Amino acid sequence: MAKLKELAEWVGAQLVGDENIEIARVAPIEEAGPGDLTFLANPRYAAKLNDCRAAAVIVAPGVESERHSLLICSNPYLAFARILARLCPPASVERRVMDGAWVDPSAQLGKEVAIHPGCHVGPNVRIGRGTILYPGVVLYEGAQIGEDCVLHAHVIVREACRIGNRVIIQPGAVIGSDGFGYAPDGRRYVKIPQIGIVEIGDDVEIGAATCIDRAALTVTRIGRGTKIDNLVQIAHNVEIGEDTIIVSQVGISGSTRIGDHCTFGGQAGIAGHVRIGDDVMIAARGGVPSDVPPGQVMSGTPVMPHKDWLKASMTFPKLPEMRRDVQALKKRLVELENLIKEK
Amino acid sequence: MAKLKELAEWVGAQLVGDENIEIARVAPIEEAGPGDLTFLANPRYAAKLNDCRAAAVIVAPGVESERHSLLICSNPYLAFARILARLCPPASVERRVMDGAWVDPSAQLGKEVAIHPGCHVGPNVRIGRGTILYPGVVLYEGAQIGEDCVLHAHVIVREACRIGNRVIIQPGAVIGSDGFGYAPDGRRYVKIPQIGIVEIGDDVEIGAATCIDRAALTVTRIGRGTKIDNLVQIAHNVEIGEDTIIVSQVGISGSTRIGDHCTFGGQAGIAGHVRIGDDVMIAARGGVPSDVPPGQVMSGTPVMPHKDWLKASMTFPKLPEMRRDVQALKKRLVELENLIKEK
Amino acid sequence: MAKLKELAEWVGAQLVGDENIEIARVAPIEEAGPGDLTFLANPRYAAKLNDCRAAAVIVAPGVESERHSLLICSNPYLAFARILARLCPPASVERRVMDGAWVDPSAQLGKEVAIHPGCHVGPNVRIGRGTILYPGVVLYEGAQIGEDCVLHAHVIVREACRIGNRVIIQPGAVIGSDGFGYAPDGRRYVKIPQIGIVEIGDDVEIGAATCIDRAALTVTRIGRGTKIDNLVQIAHNVEIGEDTIIVSQVGISGSTRIGDHCTFGGQAGIAGHVRIGDDVMIAARGGVPSDVPPGQVMSGTPVMPHKDWLKASMTFPKLPEMRRDVQALKKRLVELENLIKEK
Repeated sequence: MAKLKELAEWVGAQLVGDENIEIARVAPIEEAGPGDLTFLANPRYAAKLNDCRAAAVIVAPGVESERHSLLICSNPYLAFARILARLCPPASVERRVMDGAWVDPSAQLGKEVAIHPGCHVGPNVRIGRGTILYPGVVLYEGAQIGEDCVLHAHVIVREACRIGNRVIIQPGAVIGSDGFGYAPDGRRYVKIPQIGIVEIGDDVEIGAATCIDRAALTVTRIGRGTKIDNLVQIAHNVEIGEDTIIVSQVGISGSTRIGDHCTFGGQAGIAGHVRIGDDVMIAARGGVPSDVPPGQVMSGTPVMPHKDWLKASMTFPKLPEMRRDVQALKKRLVELENLIKEK
Repeated sequence: MAKLKELAEWVGAQLVGDENIEIARVAPIEEAGPGDLTFLANPRYAAKLNDCRAAAVIVAPGVESERHSLLICSNPYLAFARILARLCPPASVERRVMDGAWVDPSAQLGKEVAIHPGCHVGPNVRIGRGTILYPGVVLYEGAQIGEDCVLHAHVIVREACRIGNRVIIQPGAVIGSDGFGYAPDGRRYVKIPQIGIVEIGDDVEIGAATCIDRAALTVTRIGRGTKIDNLVQIAHNVEIGEDTIIVSQVGISGSTRIGDHCTFGGQAGIAGHVRIGDDVMIAARGGVPSDVPPGQVMSGTPVMPHKDWLKASMTFPKLPEMRRDVQALKKRLVELENLIKEK
Repeated sequence: MAKLKELAEWVGAQLVGDENIEIARVAPIEEAGPGDLTFLANPRYAAKLNDCRAAAVIVAPGVESERHSLLICSNPYLAFARILARLCPPASVERRVMDGAWVDPSAQLGKEVAIHPGCHVGPNVRIGRGTILYPGVVLYEGAQIGEDCVLHAHVIVREACRIGNRVIIQPGAVIGSDGFGYAPDGRRYVKIPQIGIVEIGDDVEIGAATCIDRAALTVTRIGRGTKIDNLVQIAHNVEIGEDTIIVSQVGISGSTRIGDHCTFGGQAGIAGHVRIGDDVMIAARGGVPSDVPPGQVMSGTPVMPHKDWLKASMTFPKLPEMRRDVQALKKRLVELENLIKEK
């Protein structure tokens, strides 16, 4: 519960309308009711305000409404995120090691750490101040977790892996599983011990059931601010830059290096030992077999420039017709050639 | 163990043969031995009965066999499912809160609930009568589970999510993880708190390690009777209708709405904000970028009618040959054109 | 820590250089420093030795270096794997049932078994000598685990499934979840009880969050020595041979049979009821709709011989241009035909 005035100050927005409205809830524009705050991320949809019953709306400069109080700011979506975080803080959690948690005596715990029942904190683990472990989190020997992290239920961090500050890990994610490496011995395969680690930067978020493998000898690295969705596979020795977005079910093969501020759409796949520059966008389901220079927008398998893919994939269903055309052309051309020879 | 007569009554089948046979086991048609019951789902394979050593066979009307007692019914596969459920009931489980389970005092448990060691039931959770939690299930604050559900080991249901009655959740599935939503702030990304929930209807089944994200503000919804396989990703704000089949490794992006009685083959991917009508079939690995009207059968990426895709994908390997043909045609046509000009 | 001489003997390599060097670490060729051992798997990259600061290098016969001591052997990568296993043995684990583990009194535990807190060992489970269960492993009733296995945190093995000897299972993998089988009853679906099991051979490795479903009536089988990466789906009744490699995010549909010594690249998908011969390679993202004879190398969806796919997929972006060419050819041919008729 907050006054609209306070929220405007909170995000540095210009307030037009009734500054004393009490805002209890943030709701989507179609579902907001009296007393609610909503937002209009894209001015093109301003017509939606006509039917919107919200008390107040976060808008970009230039949007007007007689029916609503307005919070005007240059980035309404960002203001929405920040107001939501203020109005709906996460549930408070008791800051202590709860009964039914196993913590090795050699582990070092920061202040205000919360460790739920069923957690297992191994020898020589370090956990920074303010970090929360939900039930069933397992930290193997020597794992290091930074400050103000949230590790949801059943997250596993294996031996010696290092997690930065303010990292959020959704339930069931696995950090530091063995990389997939074998040496052929005739027709059989011998496991190559995976003795490296995973290192995750500050402000990273990792999705549910996502797996990040430890390096064979060195470090699998996820850069600061990178956000990874659910069920993503990141193989051993991969290095990912900062502020990169990886949508669900993407797979990144071993030793690949990815730049800053890239975006990978859902179910994309990247081959091993590939370099992808900064600011690359790979569309959903794109398959990347080789290096991609910075700034490219790519689609398809194997990937090509997105515009080319759009045209080629629209032509694809016409392939059988094209083939018939080509066969017919060949036949008619032969007839024509014979006709001319005869003349 | 049951007499064939009882089984016939159980599924309303017509019995031809020895009604007093004791059936101990149901086995596939190739592996069944004396004393076993088997089934012939498709009358086209009736020849298989010649070598079948089973004592009795569930068949559709019109199938005959002198060697076997027959249970004749209109839907043999359904009768097989029901007889199997009768002959092989799930292992019985002690109905109590077992030692080593943590249950918050504010949680409300129905009668005959089984809660295994290592489970964690948070504050204000409600669990309906007859529900079984296998070891390591974690229910966050305010989660609601219906009656006669089975939540297998390490299933996680996060804050305030609601599960209907008779829902089966395979091991390691995650219900209510945060949706993947961020607001750009320059080149960085700011998390949008995901304060919505997941709501799952009656008689839904959810596969192992499948992830269903909570809505940003509202509800991610799975309709009654829908069956979801392993390792499926369902993003925030998705709504899925009733009796829809979603095979393994499918990904459904945010805010997409799917109708009733659809089927999604394995590894299919659906873009965000898309509407898919009732009775749609998307073949395995289909990529759906936009709306699909009811009743369509689609394949490919991007999807097209399945018949078109079959033809186009058969032509695809001939592309290089077609290209050579086109180049040759161009050359010969130029020659011909020159020849005619000369004449 | 070991002398180079000992390591040479360990792997049967010929030693050229200083046999008394103390090796503490194995490092990649680019990062190795004084005192380190590295390896050159491929003689083509021998030039890398010029800048390599390692004390010693494992090489194939014919590679020379004046700067390094050399371990010369026919399979340097295999020697590297074996030396690494010797120099970096896994962390030692207390061999006992630790406090906070629940073990049913009817379970049979071999000698030197380690069972961590939070594990749950159900009735009639058998665990072979020397096997390690990390925290949170759940073994349902009647599960059988062989000798010298490592089951990482939160691995789940459901009822009556059988695991061989020396099997390694990465965190969060699920063995024996219900197969995805339903009988249609009008528009609804009725669950077919999945009463079969999973059987896993010796020396198999299974990746994090991989799911292997139990058979409907019989056995889902993974052959000796097969290695499975993270987030792989293996459906009910699948049978996989020996020494087969399955990379991350592959999906194998129900009742499919796969031979020995195959390789499936990441994100490949195999339809149900398909037979794949020995020594087949399916490239990453390949989609297999039907049987594949032994020894084939296949790519694409649907798969075709890899060489054909390379050519066809290189031509694909030229489709729009080809289509324009065909249209233009048709027009010019008509003009030519008319011209000739007139003459």
